[in-house]
Amino acid sequence: MIRINENYLKLQASYLFADIARRVAAHQKAQPDRPVIRLGIGDVTRALPEACITAFHQAIDEMATDAGFRGYGPEQGYGFLREAIAQNDFRSRGAHIHADEIFVSDGAKCDTGNIQEIFDSASRIAIPDPVYPVYLDTNVMAGRTGKCRNGRYDGITYLDGNAQNGFIPELPEVPVDLIYLCFPNNPTGATITAQQLKVWVDYAAANRSIILYDAAYEAFIRDDGLPHSIYEIEGARQVAIEFRSFSKTAGFTGTRCAYTVVPKSLMAFTASGEPHSVHSLWSRRHSTKFNGVSYPVQRAAQAVYSDAGKRQVADLIDYYMTNADRIRRALQALGYPCIGGENSPYIWVSTGKDSWAFFDMLLQKAGVVCTPGAGFGTCGEGYIRISAFNSHENVATAMDRIRQALES
Amino acid sequence: MIRINENYLKLQASYLFADIARRVAAHQKAQPDRPVIRLGIGDVTRALPEACITAFHQAIDEMATDAGFRGYGPEQGYGFLREAIAQNDFRSRGAHIHADEIFVSDGAKCDTGNIQEIFDSASRIAIPDPVYPVYLDTNVMAGRTGKCRNGRYDGITYLDGNAQNGFIPELPEVPVDLIYLCFPNNPTGATITAQQLKVWVDYAAANRSIILYDAAYEAFIRDDGLPHSIYEIEGARQVAIEFRSFSKTAGFTGTRCAYTVVPKSLMAFTASGEPHSVHSLWSRRHSTKFNGVSYPVQRAAQAVYSDAGKRQVADLIDYYMTNADRIRRALQALGYPCIGGENSPYIWVSTGKDSWAFFDMLLQKAGVVCTPGAGFGTCGEGYIRISAFNSHENVATAMDRIRQALES
Repeated sequence: MIRINENYLKLQASYLFADIARRVAAHQKAQPDRPVIRLGIGDVTRALPEACITAFHQAIDEMATDAGFRGYGPEQGYGFLREAIAQNDFRSRGAHIHADEIFVSDGAKCDTGNIQEIFDSASRIAIPDPVYPVYLDTNVMAGRTGKCRNGRYDGITYLDGNAQNGFIPELPEVPVDLIYLCFPNNPTGATITAQQLKVWVDYAAANRSIILYDAAYEAFIRDDGLPHSIYEIEGARQVAIEFRSFSKTAGFTGTRCAYTVVPKSLMAFTASGEPHSVHSLWSRRHSTKFNGVSYPVQRAAQAVYSDAGKRQVADLIDYYMTNADRIRRALQALGYPCIGGENSPYIWVSTGKDSWAFFDMLLQKAGVVCTPGAGFGTCGEGYIRISAFNSHENVATAMDRIRQALES
Repeated sequence: MIRINENYLKLQASYLFADIARRVAAHQKAQPDRPVIRLGIGDVTRALPEACITAFHQAIDEMATDAGFRGYGPEQGYGFLREAIAQNDFRSRGAHIHADEIFVSDGAKCDTGNIQEIFDSASRIAIPDPVYPVYLDTNVMAGRTGKCRNGRYDGITYLDGNAQNGFIPELPEVPVDLIYLCFPNNPTGATITAQQLKVWVDYAAANRSIILYDAAYEAFIRDDGLPHSIYEIEGARQVAIEFRSFSKTAGFTGTRCAYTVVPKSLMAFTASGEPHSVHSLWSRRHSTKFNGVSYPVQRAAQAVYSDAGKRQVADLIDYYMTNADRIRRALQALGYPCIGGENSPYIWVSTGKDSWAFFDMLLQKAGVVCTPGAGFGTCGEGYIRISAFNSHENVATAMDRIRQALES
């Protein structure tokens, strides 16, 4: 008899966005005259940069002739893209990452979800709260947790973020093997300094742990002093894997391209303490279960690093960051403390009450959709996330409506 | 201390294509004047169909404007593509498959590799020999096997293919839970009749097993009597998952689009015998670890089902099948028994001696690259695989050279 992986039964039904969609639909039916403004989901809204569009078209023209046609490419990605990444995203910032340490993929969601496979099933996991749910769910599926009780799974070390620590968690009190970190953070928008990050790198080195560093939002960093990559920190090549994406940077959420960095100096161990190259393990996993990213998409991603591409991406980020600034100022002026929005497209607003109640109030009174913080973990209760991904016009209208709603 | 997944250490180093590449490079260095002709790897060589190119460009033009831009799409694929698949690949052949039973992905390699995750780690696995190595390797990684001894892993039920059974394996003698089947087969090109496939479906129903049916090469079937889908067989909706790809059909190996069919009527069980929907499990896996296929790629795939697309794909398949026919006839005329090549782009040639020795002989004497059968499993020893994916001119030259080499 074929049996299921019963770990899936431990997963909490992911009602967050479905629940939001249901409430929004009901509201729109009741008030059809005022369209809602969506500042909930973290998806970009503006056209792909022109440089990417041009490169995308050119690559498709190549695929239209037998001479230019490309079949299977290297599973790890084409050299042209890996070289451009290594040079522009790392070496230009003093981080020593080589092209062959970069694995191009179709999404950071896939990579952050799949990476745990190459580690032992008994690995002790530390996960921030609040955080992007994929880290947790993929470890539940893999059987690294017990049951969920009161919103938390047995067997996971939660790294609490709160107003006291500015949503930068403290080091775990019990030993852990795999540590997920995400900066600029989704959902809080909190950022980490080089000095703070060094504490984590040193902890990992001392405990032979590995840090899984999600830097999908690094392009939104405005403060020159903040690190964009964990490899800007001394010692990180021995303890960290980094995840990056073109999704939020260049608007690739529907185009699909991302990458993961696994330094060749990173080791994990057998039970008897024998070191093995994590790069080799991931390479084996990647080439066995993945067949590379679409060639035209890799050409479009390469164009992000052209002079025109860099300017256009900077304009795109500026556009959204203008929204972020306006949202943060508007909420602060109304007396709501905010984190994020300065080096991140997300503004994390302390609502002083139940997340869902505040969500409902904003929807009913202002016709604005946000995301209740409780959806990102128990520490998210009492907060909402507002996203800067929308047009200037919609954000201005949304802030006017929120002002009227909260002042009335 | 972070520990590795030690199951990876059981994997046999995959030297097959690396070894081939090394031998070919050495040969070309020694004989630089005669370029080798590659009939080894199973990768297509001709341009994407014009209908796909047109649709691909149009979708990119949409992405170039804020109004037409698409961000995250549904993880399971856009309705326009799932509907086209359900209608054209299934309902038109009398197979009752609905659009919402189709999961669009970026490759059949990913899907055939990932599917095992949703089943119990103690599931008993049956895998054909010879066969595509991904089925086996992904189960080794997941810990469902013991060590490898003399080319075979402990804990796997191998389904032997050989000249006696025409490379259609017999039912397993011990009970199994998950059964991998691939028809038209890679590497042998063998096909299965509806009557033969019904035996497997009935076996699975009687034993509450699930069949994982890889039909990536169905487009090459010329014999009207052969099933293209397992769902043409009565009862299959209760016992089978099917994998399909645009890779070999429409030349998408470098463009990346495939799909998996999981009928809603398919159940798997908890230890206590409680049934669970496999569709729900896979949907949860897919939406947690995957973010959908690139929107322009899905539009290009949709164009495969337009009238022009259908004609162009048929021409593409005809072109390669002309090669297959010529290869098969040439080898048979030289006295080598062949399987495949009639409903498959692969010709499986009985060489009567060591695979690698024959490979070396063809390379040295004819300058032609094939794939040694031993690379696909112990039952592949004594065979080579020749692929029809090349130009008519190259295939004609290759057959002339082989004729001269074998007759000399």
